[in-house]
Amino acid sequence: MKFEVTVEISRREGILDPEGTEIERVVPALGYTNVTGVRMGRTMRLVVDAADEAAANDQVDEMCRRLLANPVIEDYRISLSALETA
Amino acid sequence: MKFEVTVEISRREGILDPEGTEIERVVPALGYTNVTGVRMGRTMRLVVDAADEAAANDQVDEMCRRLLANPVIEDYRISLSALETA
Repeated sequence: MKFEVTVEISRREGILDPEGTEIERVVPALGYTNVTGVRMGRTMRLVVDAADEAAANDQVDEMCRRLLANPVIEDYRISLSALETA
Repeated sequence: MKFEVTVEISRREGILDPEGTEIERVVPALGYTNVTGVRMGRTMRLVVDAADEAAANDQVDEMCRRLLANPVIEDYRISLSALETA
């Protein structure tokens, strides 16, 4: 069964986010004076063929820990849904 | 009123995604032979202080078009929710 998986990878609380900080520093000059708390992250979408949702989730979690996220500085959140197959 | 905004920026359909392609190429060697359709994107989270949800959405849409996304190669999706203030 195929599952569409979205992994949102973000920096852990307390880890500096230079890109977000820079955007926040610059936007007031462009007229947006009401923007705060800018944080940038990465998203990965993929399709996993697994027996069930738990198996798909476990595999993606393992992939994230092994190679996709840096657990020292990043958190990740996995969400998945069954993919309709024609 | 403050709104927590998430912008998910992804490559348009048909635009090459070298990072996603490379991850998909490499994962079978690590034992994951059931992964397809890997696409990488960016996420931006920010807080906007606006009169209402429509105003917040319009402003973020304008910011995306002006400076955050590249409309030639990227799509973006805005989702927002009112932020509880203590």
